[in-house]
Amino acid sequence: MLISVVLSGGAGTRLWPVSREGYPKPFMKLADGESLLLKTYRRAAAVGASDILTVTNRDYYFMSKDEIALADLDMSAHFLLEPAGRNTAPAVAMAAQMVAELHGPDALMLVLPADHLVQDQAAFAQAVAKARSLALQDKLVTFGIIPTGPETGFGYIETGADVGDGKQVVRFVEKPSLDKAREYVDSGRFVWNSGMFCFKAGVILQELAAHASDVDTATRACWAATCAAGGDRTKMAEIPAEAFAEVPDISIDYAVMERSSNVVVVPGDFGWSDIGSWVAVRDLTAPDGNNNRATGNAVFVNSHNVYAQGDDRLVAAVGVQDLLIIDTPDALLIAHPDRAQEVKQVVSHLKTQGHDAYKLHRTVKRPWGTYTVLEEGPRFKIKRIEVKPGASLSLQMHHHRSEHWIVVSGMARVVNGEQELLVGANESTYIPAGHKHRLENPGVLDLVMIEVQSGEYLGEDDIVRFADIYGRA
Amino acid sequence: MLISVVLSGGAGTRLWPVSREGYPKPFMKLADGESLLLKTYRRAAAVGASDILTVTNRDYYFMSKDEIALADLDMSAHFLLEPAGRNTAPAVAMAAQMVAELHGPDALMLVLPADHLVQDQAAFAQAVAKARSLALQDKLVTFGIIPTGPETGFGYIETGADVGDGKQVVRFVEKPSLDKAREYVDSGRFVWNSGMFCFKAGVILQELAAHASDVDTATRACWAATCAAGGDRTKMAEIPAEAFAEVPDISIDYAVMERSSNVVVVPGDFGWSDIGSWVAVRDLTAPDGNNNRATGNAVFVNSHNVYAQGDDRLVAAVGVQDLLIIDTPDALLIAHPDRAQEVKQVVSHLKTQGHDAYKLHRTVKRPWGTYTVLEEGPRFKIKRIEVKPGASLSLQMHHHRSEHWIVVSGMARVVNGEQELLVGANESTYIPAGHKHRLENPGVLDLVMIEVQSGEYLGEDDIVRFADIYGRA
Repeated sequence: MLISVVLSGGAGTRLWPVSREGYPKPFMKLADGESLLLKTYRRAAAVGASDILTVTNRDYYFMSKDEIALADLDMSAHFLLEPAGRNTAPAVAMAAQMVAELHGPDALMLVLPADHLVQDQAAFAQAVAKARSLALQDKLVTFGIIPTGPETGFGYIETGADVGDGKQVVRFVEKPSLDKAREYVDSGRFVWNSGMFCFKAGVILQELAAHASDVDTATRACWAATCAAGGDRTKMAEIPAEAFAEVPDISIDYAVMERSSNVVVVPGDFGWSDIGSWVAVRDLTAPDGNNNRATGNAVFVNSHNVYAQGDDRLVAAVGVQDLLIIDTPDALLIAHPDRAQEVKQVVSHLKTQGHDAYKLHRTVKRPWGTYTVLEEGPRFKIKRIEVKPGASLSLQMHHHRSEHWIVVSGMARVVNGEQELLVGANESTYIPAGHKHRLENPGVLDLVMIEVQSGEYLGEDDIVRFADIYGRA
Repeated sequence: MLISVVLSGGAGTRLWPVSREGYPKPFMKLADGESLLLKTYRRAAAVGASDILTVTNRDYYFMSKDEIALADLDMSAHFLLEPAGRNTAPAVAMAAQMVAELHGPDALMLVLPADHLVQDQAAFAQAVAKARSLALQDKLVTFGIIPTGPETGFGYIETGADVGDGKQVVRFVEKPSLDKAREYVDSGRFVWNSGMFCFKAGVILQELAAHASDVDTATRACWAATCAAGGDRTKMAEIPAEAFAEVPDISIDYAVMERSSNVVVVPGDFGWSDIGSWVAVRDLTAPDGNNNRATGNAVFVNSHNVYAQGDDRLVAAVGVQDLLIIDTPDALLIAHPDRAQEVKQVVSHLKTQGHDAYKLHRTVKRPWGTYTVLEEGPRFKIKRIEVKPGASLSLQMHHHRSEHWIVVSGMARVVNGEQELLVGANESTYIPAGHKHRLENPGVLDLVMIEVQSGEYLGEDDIVRFADIYGRA
């Protein structure tokens, strides 16, 4: 039995403005329209995992469920929800507790970060098959990537003698200097540390106890607190915040892998990328004769080595070279490819300034669908609201604003004060301030609605929730 | 009597995406929110012109009237409307006919292109005073700009002996090579040809007859046709298209100035710029310590010599240098300052492709106000409509779309089928397809309205106009 544990954390600040705090890197869609998370789910299914356990922040629960629904996989899915990020050792330890409870200590865990890309699925499946056979022999298996160049952004693993289908791990080394990286690559003995693993749940728990007793003790207490909190853990377990705060913030590499003598590595060459910056995203699109690349609507005049990514807006580049142009509805990034790592400084700057663009997109995801602010002005705000089939917003009331709702497609069931009515395409209704109301999509198609808000105060915090199927009341 | 003739033509394709065919360079607003045309009107008033005659394409009539209203000048305003652009000689000739008719042949014309900037008004006023005294002596006066460097983008005028307050013109020279330009500037005898002039209406008509009889004959016929067409020429004269098509396409420099021996030049140094490219616009904003400049919301990280111009959207530049970033709601330009002239190639490309972004902005001006498409989707389109006080849209009908109107500020008088009603802020009305309707702003504040269109066809051409106060029915 193979359980894929998908670690879906990480802000991906180097991929701003597409990746934002409220919509981080795993949810970033590539040019084919699929998110990295969705691709990870498909990858897990393709190598024969029978269950997927997603470890993620509780804020991303509904968004993650949407992605797994899109993947349309014939397998069970569980969620382990963290109240905050505590690095990979606590995530793996808690996941191992949950897998051991659900499937027993001999169940194999295939740990996959949610924000990596693998382009050669067949080669990846071969590597997983090798890892499984080693993990069944109670090894801790890590996946090493055969280097394509002297990268200084990755950790390296020095490999030793053959061990079954893998190799002995001589040592882990941190991100090296360029000279060191060249030496490693030339030696032929070093691989990149991918952050993917395979082991039995019971084995990693034993190794944690042996090499990181603080993590082990704290996460066992935390798992007990999670179980004590009740709820149906066969679907989703939510880790209590107080207990999780006691858990050390440490990586699984540092807590266990670098300390245990039981670690083997399976080297592989399967078109792996950690999509670490916009340069990696750029490289996924084929260049034209001037080495320019575009996803979206771009015009290049006397320009070279330019990547333009956008949606509807037209991007024109004139007489420029060596640029990344990343266009989103509310923020634009222009960066030199050699400085792509420094994009995270923009995010820090925006956080310091209190600018929302580090956190939210113009389109905001909600458990029931999305809303997009189309325009704001004095005393009015216009939103496009999309509600998924069967979904429902909370029963709510606003003190300071009234709302005009116009359905443009699909069907709405609306509670408006004492009335309940169905509103179809090209019909409208009006919700005065102070009226309790609820919006629901009773149909099987998406509901798309335009909301025009009017009032002296239009902040999102003017909301009183009376009932909510997502537990937000 | 001094009549300011404002020549408002020219596409300004080098200033795309702000300047577009439907909203050309004279209407481009600088960082202070004033258009170049408005600034030209103010400049004309400041030097004592008693009347303004704007020569422009008939498509820009209502937009030009809006600018003159904004200028709020205590002087009369006339318009001479061209059906198409035919260069400056026909424009000046027709204007001279109109000025001679309105004010007699001795009236002085001060010819000002509508898309130039003058930063030192006092120095400009002095130059105009000199030009007036020379023009009163029946001279053709041109304004020369004392060069600030060896520019190759301008024509030059070689000056000779003093003539009153001006200098004799030895010769006009076309845009020179860089070596020639250096030679001209070093000599101290050359000035830039600014395209501004001062002369009596009767004198320029005589000179046209003497040096460009084809232009003279054709424009006299054209003026006769304009008068024959009737209308109140004390406000506005519209040139008939058939007659104007017979007029040669030629510049006033080439037709008269370079041929006449009666030309003098008034050299001046008054902070003149023809705003010939984005570099000229950039230079109007003060740089920071890294030589970066921004109008709007920008973050610079390790960047140098970058100009970012935008509205609401956030622009972040990381590790880049020597860039112009011009951001508009539907199109983005990234250009190297040294290649700013090549921006016009983008416009050519878009025209060839049939892409609307060479012609229209997201906000479209109409005689009654503006509309902005906020969003389009299958079977729906959302517009913000702003109607000026007292203005009225045509009485109209759509076959394929119904419209929801929600007033967000101001007051609307609405004809909806057989009904007439007043719709105030936070009220709405619904216009079914096939209903005759009219929207009017009866108040003294701007009317702002959201329109949600719904239907199987939402093109702007699904409109039947029954009555229109702007003559468009």
